[in-house]
Amino acid sequence: MTFDPASLCFDANGLIPAVAQDADSGEVLMVAWMNVEAVAKTLDTGRVTYWSRSRQAFWIKGETSGHVQELVDFRLDCDRDCLLLQVRQTGPACHTNRRSCFYTAVRDSAEVELMAPDKEA
Amino acid sequence: MTFDPASLCFDANGLIPAVAQDADSGEVLMVAWMNVEAVAKTLDTGRVTYWSRSRQAFWIKGETSGHVQELVDFRLDCDRDCLLLQVRQTGPACHTNRRSCFYTAVRDSAEVELMAPDKEA
Repeated sequence: MTFDPASLCFDANGLIPAVAQDADSGEVLMVAWMNVEAVAKTLDTGRVTYWSRSRQAFWIKGETSGHVQELVDFRLDCDRDCLLLQVRQTGPACHTNRRSCFYTAVRDSAEVELMAPDKEA
Repeated sequence: MTFDPASLCFDANGLIPAVAQDADSGEVLMVAWMNVEAVAKTLDTGRVTYWSRSRQAFWIKGETSGHVQELVDFRLDCDRDCLLLQVRQTGPACHTNRRSCFYTAVRDSAEVELMAPDKEA
């Protein structure tokens, strides 16, 4: 069946959440949002492209930082309302220069920082 | 720093997306939503509890199916607007009886089914 990005279920703002996962290690790197055009651009170019809710513009991941995400596999869930992108991440995924945005855990009711920013980034 | 669920950034509907990941294999199992009380219940009980948008009710994962998610680690992202739950999943996570909800890939413009439903579930 040919895939049509418009067949996904977008929310009231025309967006769908996308989980980016390191294709090799399985680490969850970040979650961001796509609109229908961002989905099409990501599939067409193999470069992960989100929709920035704050800037209201396309966000080609790594375009300014160099921390690009090369698409390895594009998956959708059973309800077609969430995406899983397996990627090859160059450098840190997080704008804080950490490998993953999920660097804070809650353990014994306290916040714990799990990783420090990359030094050289 | 003591963690306060109300310190998370919830959307206009009072919800935050939560990615459930198998704590051992790293497989991304599903994405669902929580409100502030669901976050508190999950942390208090160690049993992952979502908010069902369709039923507008708490959804203690596995309460009827037995396919529970035991919380192993609770993480939040840099913007505090997304959660990553590392879990021990009993049985399939997906209501279609597949291990993961992300069983469809898009490859060469076509949808490909990556896994079949569990037989015995």
